[in-house]
Amino acid sequence: MAVPILKQGPFLIASIQSALTDTDVLQLRDDVMAQVTRHRSKGIIVDVTSLDVMDSFVSRSLRGIAMMTRLRGAETVIVGIQPEVAFAMVQLGMSFEDVQTALDLEEGLALLEAGFLGP
Amino acid sequence: MAVPILKQGPFLIASIQSALTDTDVLQLRDDVMAQVTRHRSKGIIVDVTSLDVMDSFVSRSLRGIAMMTRLRGAETVIVGIQPEVAFAMVQLGMSFEDVQTALDLEEGLALLEAGFLGP
Repeated sequence: MAVPILKQGPFLIASIQSALTDTDVLQLRDDVMAQVTRHRSKGIIVDVTSLDVMDSFVSRSLRGIAMMTRLRGAETVIVGIQPEVAFAMVQLGMSFEDVQTALDLEEGLALLEAGFLGP
Repeated sequence: MAVPILKQGPFLIASIQSALTDTDVLQLRDDVMAQVTRHRSKGIIVDVTSLDVMDSFVSRSLRGIAMMTRLRGAETVIVGIQPEVAFAMVQLGMSFEDVQTALDLEEGLALLEAGFLGP
């Protein structure tokens, strides 16, 4: 299932609705890159609230999206990582390293706004 | 003995009072994760001033807590590592790597405030 990407002002919000196949993840990457270019977006929020499992391919791909969009001038924030997902990721030694994370969509938007519109 | 966690504005302060059993450490981890979500905290200070020994399980768990809370959008600072504990940790090749540390509670709060409320 494709991930819907909403434009909100200078930002894009990609809201993952259900578990992603590997194809979906690659599709998401291409869609985000295309939309960043089209809308000249300054930030992207990837909402993973509905994922209760995040395998290494998904987490690596999300990190890849963040790196790629940064090279296009847009910062990515990953929001809504569930506590049990965070726990599993740390246990497995996966991390988002230099990718921004936030509790939920609201905090993610606040983070982007603080970074790009202020202070 | 459970570790008391105090809420101070946007931050949480977990003040370790005495030597921790492994169960206490896991309890601390779960408590911190629950409170970060409940209070939408931006930062956590773990005060280890009263620990005169820090074994590898405790230090690994504290690092795990820092990683997990980061994935939930909250930065962790570990404060009050005693000189002899620091000495032992270095001798044993343990380190907190990319986890923030500070001298004491006051410095820890200053660090979080600089990161989140300023400049």
